[in-house]
Amino acid sequence: MSTQPETGPSAELIADVFQRGCTSRQVLETVTGRWGVLTVAGLRDGAIRFNALRRRIDGVSEKMLAQTLQALERDGIVIREARATLPPHVEYRLSELGEQIADRLIGLIELLEDSVPEVSSAQRDYDARD
Amino acid sequence: MSTQPETGPSAELIADVFQRGCTSRQVLETVTGRWGVLTVAGLRDGAIRFNALRRRIDGVSEKMLAQTLQALERDGIVIREARATLPPHVEYRLSELGEQIADRLIGLIELLEDSVPEVSSAQRDYDARD
Repeated sequence: MSTQPETGPSAELIADVFQRGCTSRQVLETVTGRWGVLTVAGLRDGAIRFNALRRRIDGVSEKMLAQTLQALERDGIVIREARATLPPHVEYRLSELGEQIADRLIGLIELLEDSVPEVSSAQRDYDARD
Repeated sequence: MSTQPETGPSAELIADVFQRGCTSRQVLETVTGRWGVLTVAGLRDGAIRFNALRRRIDGVSEKMLAQTLQALERDGIVIREARATLPPHVEYRLSELGEQIADRLIGLIELLEDSVPEVSSAQRDYDARD
């Protein structure tokens, strides 16, 4: 990832998020998209129903959460389980890959939550400059 | 982060990315925004000039990269250094907090790059379902 692969037929074999066409770049955009991080992180405590997940992620619309879950399911990060009960019971949970991704995102989230005082101070300094 | 803080005056003391108004949520959105991840990751090898960084991040426009760098600078994640030479020489580098964030993002990126075969296979299965 630290060097740019040359363009050409063999370049496609090297996954590189810095390259527009790479699958890893698309997955990165899904996982880190506006709602991707919070959706994956919100699933890390185990299987959860759509509405419970939606309540957990303050501000997400029904449509956006559905789209995000669908993209994550397509990438094999989220598993949708529908039990044939009446009424049908649908739950979402992380795949093994999803759990690995969640671990890394949680590390990032905890760092950012712990950094709020530092970031707020930097923002005040920056805004005072102008 | 695993429990929702109660609303009320003291709730603001608990950083929680799941809450819309929290500074950590705003920083998460900057860091994981469309170009945030790639900008932070692109800076991890040390100070770099704007145009070199732009070449590294395939597909980013001048305007978007400038906006992303500015938001990251405001949050204290990126440091902009202008040397008073002729012509002026401007470089961008990560702060200490920026380096900690980059470490976590690189972990995520490497996982996703390594997961391309698994994700591609999941996508094929998903698309074959319909």
